[in-house]
Amino acid sequence: MRVLETCLYVTDLGRAEQFYSGVLGLPLFAKVPGRHLFYRLEGGMLLLFDPRASAQPGDVPPHAGSPGGHACLTLDPARTDDWEARLRAAGLNVTRYAWGDRGESLYFHDPAGNVLELAPPRIWGITV
Amino acid sequence: MRVLETCLYVTDLGRAEQFYSGVLGLPLFAKVPGRHLFYRLEGGMLLLFDPRASAQPGDVPPHAGSPGGHACLTLDPARTDDWEARLRAAGLNVTRYAWGDRGESLYFHDPAGNVLELAPPRIWGITV
Repeated sequence: MRVLETCLYVTDLGRAEQFYSGVLGLPLFAKVPGRHLFYRLEGGMLLLFDPRASAQPGDVPPHAGSPGGHACLTLDPARTDDWEARLRAAGLNVTRYAWGDRGESLYFHDPAGNVLELAPPRIWGITV
Repeated sequence: MRVLETCLYVTDLGRAEQFYSGVLGLPLFAKVPGRHLFYRLEGGMLLLFDPRASAQPGDVPPHAGSPGGHACLTLDPARTDDWEARLRAAGLNVTRYAWGDRGESLYFHDPAGNVLELAPPRIWGITV
């Protein structure tokens, strides 16, 4: 099994789109104004919901979370400096943290306050 | 880029371990009692935090979310009936939902109230 959908909740989808599409450069897959933004990543999806819409009853269970989540995307370790500079140039506070000799993570927050991380898979011993 | 870490918040790590290890059968990778359970999946990690511990200040930004999140794991469509029976046998309410002809999802809740889903990648047009 692997993760197919990772979900974060945001309160302003417009700001979220500027951030995830613009700053992070992720490819937008689907968008319903006022409800969600779906990004297609390698092998899976990153779903961003506005809970004011997604928490409403429907055909599937309500998605009634809140900002304050966490997700980590893969980082090519050779591009750590580039990404840190790109994130700082966008006005973000970036925490760079070394996991011993296993690699370094970059931590920052999206506009809704979710904690995002970029990290090389080898911090978990993952080599693919 | 792909998702390396998907994170959910739980309030009772003991019940969470019974559920994620026992009912879902995921492989536990690391455990710190009172703080977290980390599961190693294909190509990435599922992190379960108790925010009473993970929200404390530390070397990396606090992980201060709350239950009510959502994640979806991959499902072999040939095993949908088996998984539905297994989840119902564990006492769960299961919502089975068909995405047109793209496949079916199983929705249920973990003990903390996170909305979990099992779905075949082709609901998103993902074939790997």
